[in-house]
Amino acid sequence: MKIAILPGDGIGPEIVAQAVKVLNALDEKFELETAPVGGAGYEAAGHPLPEATLALAKAADAVLFGAVGDWKYDTLDRPLRPEQAILGLRKNLGLFANLRPAILYPELAGASTLKPEVVSGLDILIIRELTGDIYFGQPRGVRECPDGPFKGQREGFDTMRYAEGEIRRIAHVAFQAAQKRGKRLTSVDKANVLETFQFWKDIVTDVHKEYPDVALDHMYVDNAAMQLVRAPKKFDVIVTGNMFGDILSDAAAMLTGSIGMLPSASLDANNKGLYEPSHGSAPDIAGKGVANPLATILSAAMMLRYSLGRAEQAERIENAVKAVLAQGLRTPDIHEAGTTKVGTEQMGDAVVKALA
Amino acid sequence: MKIAILPGDGIGPEIVAQAVKVLNALDEKFELETAPVGGAGYEAAGHPLPEATLALAKAADAVLFGAVGDWKYDTLDRPLRPEQAILGLRKNLGLFANLRPAILYPELAGASTLKPEVVSGLDILIIRELTGDIYFGQPRGVRECPDGPFKGQREGFDTMRYAEGEIRRIAHVAFQAAQKRGKRLTSVDKANVLETFQFWKDIVTDVHKEYPDVALDHMYVDNAAMQLVRAPKKFDVIVTGNMFGDILSDAAAMLTGSIGMLPSASLDANNKGLYEPSHGSAPDIAGKGVANPLATILSAAMMLRYSLGRAEQAERIENAVKAVLAQGLRTPDIHEAGTTKVGTEQMGDAVVKALA
Ligand SMILES: CC(C)[C@H](C(=O)O)[C@@H](O)C(=O)O
Ligand SMILES: CC(C)[C@H](C(=O)O)[C@@H](O)C(=O)O
Repeated sequence: MKIAILPGDGIGPEIVAQAVKVLNALDEKFELETAPVGGAGYEAAGHPLPEATLALAKAADAVLFGAVGDWKYDTLDRPLRPEQAILGLRKNLGLFANLRPAILYPELAGASTLKPEVVSGLDILIIRELTGDIYFGQPRGVRECPDGPFKGQREGFDTMRYAEGEIRRIAHVAFQAAQKRGKRLTSVDKANVLETFQFWKDIVTDVHKEYPDVALDHMYVDNAAMQLVRAPKKFDVIVTGNMFGDILSDAAAMLTGSIGMLPSASLDANNKGLYEPSHGSAPDIAGKGVANPLATILSAAMMLRYSLGRAEQAERIENAVKAVLAQGLRTPDIHEAGTTKVGTEQMGDAVVKALA
Repeated sequence: MKIAILPGDGIGPEIVAQAVKVLNALDEKFELETAPVGGAGYEAAGHPLPEATLALAKAADAVLFGAVGDWKYDTLDRPLRPEQAILGLRKNLGLFANLRPAILYPELAGASTLKPEVVSGLDILIIRELTGDIYFGQPRGVRECPDGPFKGQREGFDTMRYAEGEIRRIAHVAFQAAQKRGKRLTSVDKANVLETFQFWKDIVTDVHKEYPDVALDHMYVDNAAMQLVRAPKKFDVIVTGNMFGDILSDAAAMLTGSIGMLPSASLDANNKGLYEPSHGSAPDIAGKGVANPLATILSAAMMLRYSLGRAEQAERIENAVKAVLAQGLRTPDIHEAGTTKVGTEQMGDAVVKALA
């Protein structure tokens, strides 16, 4: 089993190092190969997704990804900016299913900006389609406005689109995930305005026929954003498109107040996947040894479960993370009075110790 | 001065009746003319936006709108569904600037699902572009997928677009609003992915040159959704496109926990406008006399200020609303222990009384 390790920028290298330490502490050894990506890819090879990095990711059985981005690359042309690496990996590896759990650990309930009774015990799973929608639709660009009151002016434009097969495959992933959980699926759309999402709604409704044991409901995206704030625990699994999923999954993660704890998986049709923390590269704290490595360590656990068929090892890691929380260890982002503040490495070491 | 009164569906007629009562209690009398819209338009004339209703709205100096929509119209073809009325009014009247304050009244801090320290004193203004973006962009529809791995299948598609002049005029509205408030403007985009919003960002940056006294920052929409949950009070004025604004303004409204209190204005280039509560038609409680009329009454106040040049009358109404809250009067949606529960009409009557 070969794992591509792509640390990236900012805190990426520090947090990935901890996850690697955890992987190396398991009985079974995996082949780990590291390559630069994002700003680090640009520095090393003049491109955020160097060819060798992409080749490694393609050849590997799974990819463990840190984070990309740093202010110093903000002035580069868009195709050279760090975040293009993540878009390129998704598209080139066909990673169409993004799974983002928003879970609030009981010990961390105080970290949320929401009242404890609204979020304690929160456990929702957002499934975001990741290779379609307005992220990749053509045509797009800046052109002369062809008609209407602004005719002749410059205009920016993009194309939103979803083909039937694209919707079907993500719907199957979502219904199957719901079957393994609370058996409730909310499909989020904007069918009252967008043709793309009326079509989405129709196809999801059709796929539902194959999953009669799952309760399906449809919700407009604006209402979903409200309900996430009002009563997030009413959700079980949410499925939506790439653009709405980008917004809602980040909002849902922030409900927990501890985005430093949340892993994510991006899967292809054969359960090969890319695993990364839900948070970003946080260049402001990079190199200071204070970043929370737990989201990355939990991403490694998801990788063991989904792509490497090692569910038991995944559970061992997840239990080790629960154990260090129970011990009261906290990186600064989740620290509160009465708990012990630790740094990135100490936290990684504590997880390794708790594995035993 | 002529005001078109469009009560609509669900609780629309009840809440609009209270706002009309308040308008009629002012010293100056306005000419009020009522017409059906939404489901009521469909019942009366076979269309959610009957020609006579549109003609009235065009001829009037301002429009006071209740709410539209009811489950019984969900099975109609999309062009006949109630919400098409609101899209049609926006487009036909050129109402490109949607102003949505999210304010948390001190008396209602407990209504929020967020911790008091995170939201108490919240006062942000979201300015949403309302006649462009993917809401109206052509082409759109369902077609045969022209290329890629799903070639030949059916696909739903839409066009996102913003012309330079469209962005400039909403940016001016936003900078001027910020000048009258905390002098900080956050432009929300997705410039890292969308051509439309890289263009948006460039134009907003250019317009900023004319407003050196306003501090401008740019934020990605996913981050904005997170920051609204994490630290909403850091915002002053937010400006964004139609689609992102739909989502973020509803999320921001829900932060207050009292969406029954929040008015909105949709303005054209000459400050003619349509005014409506930020909440929906709530068919489940329609006709029960329990709906909160304050958002509609506050919408009438906004109308007096923005479209009718009657700022003093607007303030009188706003102070009357504050007075009834201070008296402890609450409709069921904002009721808590120690306050007095009242119905829709009683609340309207109390505001009229407090005007004196
Ligand atoms: C960096 C950006 C292109 C990316 C996205 O929008 O998908 C990020 O926000 C994410 O959610 O992974
Ligand atoms: C009803 C719908 C078309 C409308 C919109 O999306 O604009 C509504 O959500 C709103 O925000 O006024």
